[in-house]
Amino acid sequence: MNQSSVLIVGSLAYDDLEMPTGTFENVVGGAATYASIAASLFCPVRLVGVIGEDFPNLVITDLEKRGVDAAGVERAKGKTFRWRGRYSKDLSTRETLDTQLNVFADFRPKIPEAFKSTPYVMLGNIHPALQLEVLAQVERPKLVVADTMNFWITGEPKLLGEVMKKVDLLVINDEEAREITGIHNLVKAANEIRKRGPKYLIVKRGEHGALYFDDAGAFFAPAYPLEEVVDPTGAGDSFAGGLMGYLTRVGSLDHPHMRRAIYFGCALGSFCVEGIGPRRLLDVTQGDLKKRMEQFMTLVETGGPVGIPS
Amino acid sequence: MNQSSVLIVGSLAYDDLEMPTGTFENVVGGAATYASIAASLFCPVRLVGVIGEDFPNLVITDLEKRGVDAAGVERAKGKTFRWRGRYSKDLSTRETLDTQLNVFADFRPKIPEAFKSTPYVMLGNIHPALQLEVLAQVERPKLVVADTMNFWITGEPKLLGEVMKKVDLLVINDEEAREITGIHNLVKAANEIRKRGPKYLIVKRGEHGALYFDDAGAFFAPAYPLEEVVDPTGAGDSFAGGLMGYLTRVGSLDHPHMRRAIYFGCALGSFCVEGIGPRRLLDVTQGDLKKRMEQFMTLVETGGPVGIPS
Repeated sequence: MNQSSVLIVGSLAYDDLEMPTGTFENVVGGAATYASIAASLFCPVRLVGVIGEDFPNLVITDLEKRGVDAAGVERAKGKTFRWRGRYSKDLSTRETLDTQLNVFADFRPKIPEAFKSTPYVMLGNIHPALQLEVLAQVERPKLVVADTMNFWITGEPKLLGEVMKKVDLLVINDEEAREITGIHNLVKAANEIRKRGPKYLIVKRGEHGALYFDDAGAFFAPAYPLEEVVDPTGAGDSFAGGLMGYLTRVGSLDHPHMRRAIYFGCALGSFCVEGIGPRRLLDVTQGDLKKRMEQFMTLVETGGPVGIPS
Repeated sequence: MNQSSVLIVGSLAYDDLEMPTGTFENVVGGAATYASIAASLFCPVRLVGVIGEDFPNLVITDLEKRGVDAAGVERAKGKTFRWRGRYSKDLSTRETLDTQLNVFADFRPKIPEAFKSTPYVMLGNIHPALQLEVLAQVERPKLVVADTMNFWITGEPKLLGEVMKKVDLLVINDEEAREITGIHNLVKAANEIRKRGPKYLIVKRGEHGALYFDDAGAFFAPAYPLEEVVDPTGAGDSFAGGLMGYLTRVGSLDHPHMRRAIYFGCALGSFCVEGIGPRRLLDVTQGDLKKRMEQFMTLVETGGPVGIPS
């Protein structure tokens, strides 16, 4: 059996990052970039997005070397999407200083013919109308995963509602889960979101790990605790990419695989934050991943059943 | 072999709780109260503390019925220690509105002769000078656990340093770990704290679970996710009591037992927050505990080894 691919649709960007350790400009970023790099550790990736004339060919070539098919990356006239943000001293919060949509303003995703039957589809955090356009073009995927953000939750609730009906797994953060539902308690908010469409839900909580909900109940995986966090940019996208990559690789959505996929997502997120932009993520080897997963498991292993002592 | 006991020294109190759902006054509280109730699900408890003339005999009788030996609870002239706090709407933060030390102001712990050889000792969050007085009275305990708070970290750093040298396991929250060390990163802060004395360290993170550190590395357990949190008061003390109760019951500090003890601590914390004050905690049966632990394990079980798929 041939290894399945994952289709990733979303942003490629330039980020300007004002960190406590200094300002880093023109850092290659974008949700689809991070997700593709992470997923490519597990399976072939098909990437759809848009870049401007200023985006280096070298980055695309690097992605291609990792097994990312960039045939769906359109080079448009103008500048690449750019985001500028400033992080708090402890890196726990950030504020957006500037967003320049540039070529992203007129982006309409065109899924190449050869990509349309990709079984695993990830819709990055783009306008819900564009997410629906992607879904209209693909053919009966096995799994559709989507991300979104506050901007669309408040600005396009109806369209987002349509997306949610067509999505198998929604991956959002805790604030977004609260904003979608108006419910503070995450267990209750998760139940409400799952009623609106997604069979599976992941609520990302940054350094506090991730909660997963399905018909069988809840599952929790912690963030991997690091001694040094350099740059949280892209951690959530790396999480989603690692998760999708793993699911695509194993070709199964059963309960244990979903759980393991979440751990792999957390592991990829932990690598991501170890360097500025995608720097560290790009260097991760299969050996690094194996070692991190082993250490991750020692963090959570209870060493046997946790029964009441007699 | 007779079942070992745990010695718990700390506060018994009246709490006035201003919750989003209403104000609840004269609620029986205190760290030692919560810890004793939790620990008594696992083993006999020996309690040392002070109450005023206003503290109901019925509460003491109830504790005694649970296997708590209250011979060390001194009834002093005056009023019981009282704390008044107000919780934020989402219960995630609280502010102290008033603290009346009352009989606690002159409290000097006197360990009854019959309690002095108790193998497991828990020093609640009291003045470090009093914690040292307790340690001077007990005979070579197998495990000494201590809690502390910001007030002593900033006010009595030297005495607290002395306590830390004599403690096996320190149980504090994340802000306290940062305050003791001046280090924001919890992994680094934990390493620094363990250099100052405690062989084992638990960093409580409230709804975000607990981190445990020993020579073998780090371990993480999440908080049990609840649909309804009623009152977080005493959750950390119930956690510590459940943890100590379990360790005392099994009579072992080996790595797997430590990890399971942390899960039992989290389970007791989760019961505690389900009712105002210790109300729910007092009703917890062995059956409730067994059921919660089973559900807790489904929350974290990966369903097999999490290896890289081939």
